[in-house]
Order: sequence, then C-alpha cells, then structure tokens
Amino acid sequence: MGEIPNQSPDDQSPEDQGPEPVVLTVCTTCRPEGSDPEAPRPGRILADRLAGSALPEGVTVRGVECLSACKRSCTLHLSGGPARWGYIYGDLDPDAHLDEILAGAAAYASTEDGFVPWRERPVVFRKQSIARIPPVSMPSVALTPTQAPGAQTEDTPDTPALQSAKD
Amino acid sequence: MGEIPNQSPDDQSPEDQGPEPVVLTVCTTCRPEGSDPEAPRPGRILADRLAGSALPEGVTVRGVECLSACKRSCTLHLSGGPARWGYIYGDLDPDAHLDEILAGAAAYASTEDGFVPWRERPVVFRKQSIARIPPVSMPSVALTPTQAPGAQTEDTPDTPALQSAKD
Repeated sequence: MGEIPNQSPDDQSPEDQGPEPVVLTVCTTCRPEGSDPEAPRPGRILADRLAGSALPEGVTVRGVECLSACKRSCTLHLSGGPARWGYIYGDLDPDAHLDEILAGAAAYASTEDGFVPWRERPVVFRKQSIARIPPVSMPSVALTPTQAPGAQTEDTPDTPALQSAKD
Repeated sequence: MGEIPNQSPDDQSPEDQGPEPVVLTVCTTCRPEGSDPEAPRPGRILADRLAGSALPEGVTVRGVECLSACKRSCTLHLSGGPARWGYIYGDLDPDAHLDEILAGAAAYASTEDGFVPWRERPVVFRKQSIARIPPVSMPSVALTPTQAPGAQTEDTPDTPALQSAKD
C-alpha cells in the first residue's frame, strides 16, 4: 500500500490501470486560534489516528506541514489521482470526526471519479467542505473570449481556452 | 528555483516529458451574496476575460460550474500536473485582478513544482489563498500511528501511513 501511482498525463484512464490510490493529506501544523502553541496540533493527532486506523482498501494517509487553510484548522485534502474530484475539508476534530472521515474515504475510494452522491457522504464532508477540484480531464464549459475593458489589443492574442481533454 | 527532489518512484520527472500544462480553473457559477442572480457571474466574466487575454505560455483556462467555495466567490484553482503545488484563490474581482492573475500564472508556469517565492507572487495570490495542495509525490511527515481513545482493537490494523516516495 501507499504506492504512488503512475501519474502520467498520457494515460489517466482508470480503466487502464485500476483505481488510483486515495490519499488523505492532513495538515499537521495548523491550530485553532487561541489554542496553546505548545500543545499537539489537532491535525497531527488526526493524522496519527488515521495512520493507526484500519484504513479502507486503497486509502493512505499523508501528513504535510501546511495546506494554507489555517483559519479552518484542522484540514485535510481528499484525492485519488487525476481522474477523481478532489476535496478540501476543514474545521475537523480528531475526536469527533475520525470515523466519519474513514467512512467518507471508503465511499470515495469506491468510485472511479471521486464523486459520492450527496446523501451517501458523511455529514462532516457535506457540511465542512472548503472547496472541491474537478478531475483534470473535465472539459471547460464553453467560454466566450472577451477583451477586458481598456485592454490593449494584442497582435496575436490567439490563445484559446482549454477546450477539454476529450476522450 | 523550484527543483523537485526525487519526485517519483515511477518517474514523473518533468525533465522527461516537458512541463505539464498549467490550468486556471475558474468557477463560473458562484456569485457574491446579495448580488442579482440574473446578472452575469463574476467568475464567468473572469473566465471569459482570461480566455480573451494573451495567456502566458503553457497556460490554459477552463471554466467549471462549481468549485464549492461559494462563500469566497469568485474563485479559481491554479494547477499544473501532479508534480506541482496547486492553489485555490478566492474573492477575485474580474475588474481588479485580471492582470495579477495572468502574472501569477506566468510565474507559476515557469516553475517545475509550482512553488513561486512569496515575494514574487502577485498580491492577490499572497492575500487571497483559500488553500494549497502539495504535489502528489511529496512524502508524508513521519507519523506515529495511534489508536483513537476508545477504538476497538482490530485483529490486524496493519495499515501503516504512506511513508513517502523515497528515491
């Protein structure tokens, strides 16, 4: 376990290589405002407890030193390769949320695209999402390239939007 | 600058395949609280203007329908493949921030790991970050697997943390 997948952009189809590992990336450094700076950080406690849990199949945990979402301590990023949605959750409590996080990660890992139906997500994932990130290959909505007011006209502003990574 | 230390077991080295495209993923649907729901969404305006700009080399723009960071409208995700840091920015203004976003994307695209020195980031990227996401291959800090208080002892909870992508 804990293998890092072939991340190649030329070969992202999960059908080709089996599902990518799911990673719970936990910020181990942030702390709630007003808390004792010398006390163990909640994110560190959460990461250690996740590491000490029976993680769902295909799920690993990684501690990192800053997810730069310090006001929403403690935070984690749920990801599973370029074909899956990614999610960032905050305001997590290692005492209250461990089991829900494990259940949510299991549900996520069982999908190919990381999209778990709303009602099947644990409450903490429904209520405490900070942001989500679409799969790399999700195509753009159709855009209407527009000059900003007052923009200088370039000679060759021929830089179309990413149309998509179809197929 | 931004060199990546031992990025991968399976060889994700950007030297081998050239840098990955940088993508500005803009939420085109969120809107500031209290604004007219019929009015064009600021994120849509931003995405259209980015698409109509002379984008830095290697940078594309993608509009998506929700980054689930609605309270920080408008929002974008800056990414560039699994070897780069990813960033989510919020409270963006298509009138005020277009040039800074383009400059920040250019600086980001010039790095291998997506890490632009703080002082070289545009102010909007310094002040309006919602979260950042480490490269896929960034190893975990050393964790101390711990049983949660009251956790049942499993027969074989032998699920160590992701140790890292050594070498």
